[in-house]
Amino acid sequence: MTGTLYGLGIGPGDPELLTLKAHRVLGAAPVVAYPQPDTGPSFARSIVSEYIREDRIEYPIVVPMRTERFPAKAVYDEAARDLSVYLDEGRDVAVLCEGDPFFYGSFMYLYERLAQSYPCEVVPGVSSMMAGAAALGRPLAARNDILTVVPGTLPDEEIATRLGMSDAVVIIKIGRHFNRIKSLLESLNLVAHAGYLERISLGEQRILPLSDMTADAPYFSMILIYKGAEDWVASWPIARTEHADAH
Amino acid sequence: MTGTLYGLGIGPGDPELLTLKAHRVLGAAPVVAYPQPDTGPSFARSIVSEYIREDRIEYPIVVPMRTERFPAKAVYDEAARDLSVYLDEGRDVAVLCEGDPFFYGSFMYLYERLAQSYPCEVVPGVSSMMAGAAALGRPLAARNDILTVVPGTLPDEEIATRLGMSDAVVIIKIGRHFNRIKSLLESLNLVAHAGYLERISLGEQRILPLSDMTADAPYFSMILIYKGAEDWVASWPIARTEHADAH
Repeated sequence: MTGTLYGLGIGPGDPELLTLKAHRVLGAAPVVAYPQPDTGPSFARSIVSEYIREDRIEYPIVVPMRTERFPAKAVYDEAARDLSVYLDEGRDVAVLCEGDPFFYGSFMYLYERLAQSYPCEVVPGVSSMMAGAAALGRPLAARNDILTVVPGTLPDEEIATRLGMSDAVVIIKIGRHFNRIKSLLESLNLVAHAGYLERISLGEQRILPLSDMTADAPYFSMILIYKGAEDWVASWPIARTEHADAH
Repeated sequence: MTGTLYGLGIGPGDPELLTLKAHRVLGAAPVVAYPQPDTGPSFARSIVSEYIREDRIEYPIVVPMRTERFPAKAVYDEAARDLSVYLDEGRDVAVLCEGDPFFYGSFMYLYERLAQSYPCEVVPGVSSMMAGAAALGRPLAARNDILTVVPGTLPDEEIATRLGMSDAVVIIKIGRHFNRIKSLLESLNLVAHAGYLERISLGEQRILPLSDMTADAPYFSMILIYKGAEDWVASWPIARTEHADAH
């Protein structure tokens, strides 16, 4: 009997936003793997550190942060090879995935390499997009709204087209594209409809009306724009949470 | 001290897909409210029935299923009035929300009426969209993909435009629009890219390549289409789960 590969959605950051299922699987799996930048600790591991038992085998998948090239094929080839040894021994492997494993997640690169050879189960998780709407106090989408998720890495015209054709837009992967995207939203008169969020559900989360956000944005940030069917949403004050130590 | 109104995301159907936080809040709140059709039991309540203690006050929000008109303003006016009595007494009220409260959820109608008068917290949940991708064994979106969520209630041309401009599309609220939507996807040569899902994460879930689905679809069904950056996804066999008693 080979082990099972689990892609565990562990939510946006608050350890309490794990599902009961992810919590159970994590408690039972003898091997826990997680992405880790070569520049510091693993965010995924930090979310669930209190739930990882000391007798677990931990396997960090070290992803180089120096390059824009992604996926780092060699990294996932090696990780798949190493994890398959545990699976062959009959040990379950739980791979920690920030948010949801299949929503812009890197778990797919392991899934691609291992799911045809081993039993594999993806445990869905709370996405930062849903947690962001909850924190903002604004629906993500309602009724017959069209919702579009657009990576901020795309060119202005690609983003602008979707803004024009959607009732609600989530712009992810903001990071160093922040100033360009804010200018674009200004030119489209959409800043008043937009909320800015970073490090959602964590102690140091920042939530601001986009109009009040000027500084550089980290990679884990997003902008939510609502201009859909519910008029009251647009008139709603955007929540503001700013940790005293955020700067 | 007034009570707190909680919008509790309880996930797509599997009781184990509640978050630890939703489980805790549900266990502590003296009042539990949930939508209930006037034609039968509450789906939301059935998801968490094992977690509701007998000494809880239960408040079904009975939503008429006879009409297309929605929101049923009078229903939410009355529910907000009744729940505010509990809140004024200092009792917390947990409102059960299938999936995520702010992702096409009806919780927003209570939030609109009560959030300016009472402390309110939205607890995000696992969306059926994420659970659907997990069950299909296919990423919802990856890398720089554009993901669009389109209600199947919209006209063909609205849906077709988004299909053309997105790498991944989720069509929700399929129900009686199934035949029309499948024909549309056939005319666009997208059926081979599409998975059909209903009652995701429940014992009676059905997951099929769209090409194999012909019968009528229930309201709680969706179609996922992936034609994004990851070539291997398109070549992946779509999972198939069909409960023996489904028919």
